[in-house]
Amino acid sequence: MKTYKKKDFPLTKIRRFLEPGPIVLMSSAHKGERNIMTLGWHMMMGFEPALVGCYIWDQNHSFSLIRRSKECVINVPTFDLVDAVIGVGNSHGPHVDKFEKYGLTPVEASKVAAPIIAECFANFECKLVDTSLIKQYSLFVFEVVKAHVATSPRYPKTVHYRGDGTFMVSGRNVSYRSRFKPVNL
Amino acid sequence: MKTYKKKDFPLTKIRRFLEPGPIVLMSSAHKGERNIMTLGWHMMMGFEPALVGCYIWDQNHSFSLIRRSKECVINVPTFDLVDAVIGVGNSHGPHVDKFEKYGLTPVEASKVAAPIIAECFANFECKLVDTSLIKQYSLFVFEVVKAHVATSPRYPKTVHYRGDGTFMVSGRNVSYRSRFKPVNL
Repeated sequence: MKTYKKKDFPLTKIRRFLEPGPIVLMSSAHKGERNIMTLGWHMMMGFEPALVGCYIWDQNHSFSLIRRSKECVINVPTFDLVDAVIGVGNSHGPHVDKFEKYGLTPVEASKVAAPIIAECFANFECKLVDTSLIKQYSLFVFEVVKAHVATSPRYPKTVHYRGDGTFMVSGRNVSYRSRFKPVNL
Repeated sequence: MKTYKKKDFPLTKIRRFLEPGPIVLMSSAHKGERNIMTLGWHMMMGFEPALVGCYIWDQNHSFSLIRRSKECVINVPTFDLVDAVIGVGNSHGPHVDKFEKYGLTPVEASKVAAPIIAECFANFECKLVDTSLIKQYSLFVFEVVKAHVATSPRYPKTVHYRGDGTFMVSGRNVSYRSRFKPVNL
């Protein structure tokens, strides 16, 4: 499968990739185990530091890997990876290596032990900075500490989950930059 | 502008409209004041009760209206409302009635005092159920208590914000229902 040439991306601008609401693949590792999960419930929670909130169901194997390692990578897949997105989202537990099963390539990250998925066009290395909302809300608050983004295309086709087995694929992009106040850009 | 024929929608299934990550218009009212804000930082936080987390910047006038009234309506606009989305997002404060200025029609909600925006294809009446994360994270946790959704079209063209004045418009929808485990649908 396709991989991308990537560059470091400014952390204060990663909202560009997460705010539109794509499904992400979250990779994690702890004590020799690694895993990937499909995740659709996430939101930006701050620009600087770059905070992202993620709802991780406590029945996911990734839940414990991430809580114990306090790290993960948020990888943003494109539509050509939809088979992996569906496969990962519908397999559970530690018994399958999802990188091997779905043809995804783990690449060493620079600031966390969790692997980057090479086939995803954007990868955000994350540190878990607040564990206090996990018990009540399954809400993990991460700080993105390193961002890698493909140099092209500018707007890859992301997948967005509608429930009931249906995905929306991102459509056209329209700039209204001149109608925004600079402070709101 | 166009309004929609709507029906009550099951609260446990509203993820269908919010998980894909559209920009929403949040309406509020308190003691004779009403307001609308544009909001892109939100996430599903539970199916039953139907919880939605929203990041509301404390410099928004809506912040105080919602915190004091403990209610709002999350309205999901379509691409034909992009002028209102941009206009609302780039005007601040209590000095302009945004319903009048942007040609939006307030309709009485059934369970909250905040008005529904008739021109939006989905409206979720919300009660603020947790104020404890507002100070640290500007995070409002809402329970959706009533949902109104247009009977057609099934998949309206929503707008998704990429930052820098650029919106992505939702594209095609693809069902992979047969490849999902029933429990994951």
